[in-house]
Amino acid sequence: MGVDSKLKTLIVIGHPNIQDSRTQQFFKEAVQTFENVTFFDATAGLEIEKAQQLMVDHQRIILQFPLYWYSCPACLKDWLDQILSLSGIEETLANKELGLVVSLGVKSSEFQAGGREKFTLSELMRPFEAIANKFNMSYLPIFSLSNLSYLTEIETKQALIKYQQYVSMEKSFSFEISEQWHLEQLLKIQKNHPKFEEKIQMLIEEIEENRDELSTLEHSLKEMKEE
Amino acid sequence: MGVDSKLKTLIVIGHPNIQDSRTQQFFKEAVQTFENVTFFDATAGLEIEKAQQLMVDHQRIILQFPLYWYSCPACLKDWLDQILSLSGIEETLANKELGLVVSLGVKSSEFQAGGREKFTLSELMRPFEAIANKFNMSYLPIFSLSNLSYLTEIETKQALIKYQQYVSMEKSFSFEISEQWHLEQLLKIQKNHPKFEEKIQMLIEEIEENRDELSTLEHSLKEMKEE
Repeated sequence: MGVDSKLKTLIVIGHPNIQDSRTQQFFKEAVQTFENVTFFDATAGLEIEKAQQLMVDHQRIILQFPLYWYSCPACLKDWLDQILSLSGIEETLANKELGLVVSLGVKSSEFQAGGREKFTLSELMRPFEAIANKFNMSYLPIFSLSNLSYLTEIETKQALIKYQQYVSMEKSFSFEISEQWHLEQLLKIQKNHPKFEEKIQMLIEEIEENRDELSTLEHSLKEMKEE
Repeated sequence: MGVDSKLKTLIVIGHPNIQDSRTQQFFKEAVQTFENVTFFDATAGLEIEKAQQLMVDHQRIILQFPLYWYSCPACLKDWLDQILSLSGIEETLANKELGLVVSLGVKSSEFQAGGREKFTLSELMRPFEAIANKFNMSYLPIFSLSNLSYLTEIETKQALIKYQQYVSMEKSFSFEISEQWHLEQLLKIQKNHPKFEEKIQMLIEEIEENRDELSTLEHSLKEMKEE
């Protein structure tokens, strides 16, 4: 009963120079073992029809790009201008999910009222939200990542896990789904790295024990509410 | 004492096919006799440095484009990505005005909460407002125009005058400045079309009479407030 076993995700990258981007490399490595994740380079010439076919096959569509003048780079806008005008694109996109992975050159705290950039990312990304609205897509919360050189080692590892979740976890980010997702990741590691088997087994048992305890607590809480 | 005699305006057009656009033709004809208005085609190849030079010479910079997927067309984004990264561009743009002329494929009333497009144009154009903010430019109210075929003859004429004002009138759109602007336009017509001389002279006299009356009213109002 895998949480991410059915969700298929298409990541459309819009970057003028993917190869030289440390951030894009980071994202790619984070999900390289994820079977249901497909990368598509939006700058790879005139593969517009191929992209539409890929969209048919995937439920979650993510636009991944560095912020260029408060929007996506021109190369991605060019791709959008073309693909969103294709015939049949309404049917292709309806009821799918649209997510954004935006890498920032400045600290994310600058994007707020009173911050240097004045507007939030949610405000600046309205045109993408409007596209989701237009095509009856479900708009996901934006995933943003500041320049990796600003992050500590721990922050980088946290970003890695959050990105993996953003790409592969079901939309209702409930505690239960999150827990189930973590269990699956552990099982994957256990399978691929037998030498960690014992340690991972211990972790899994701990998570399961915690879950039992949580269930008991939830049950008590429910009873209290009903009294 | 001309209102628009000093203001120089650069109109940067971002349109994949200017020649075939009835709306772009409409805009161009509306200000063809305006001496201080310069048009620049953002799709005209690699004239980025020339554009920067033009920006140095003009006080008001207008980006003029059809709305493509809730933003500017890719060709204009490409131009912006390039020009805003030039060295010295901060000094070029500081304290200038940034305006947007956006032509819409749907009725402008759809751009509001509850409307089909859900967001206002002001919200969708945040990235441009953020650019103005970044470069210490003064952001003008957006000028938008729905498909000309939706407009009545009178609405079209009104749009023409509003566009002329947007391009050439001083920023503080006070009644006095607006009146002065209209007087100048009449004087221009009088000069170029002598056969209308008498009619225009009458109009000018009427406006001047109205102004005297307005002054009297304003004076009375001020006295009443002071009592």
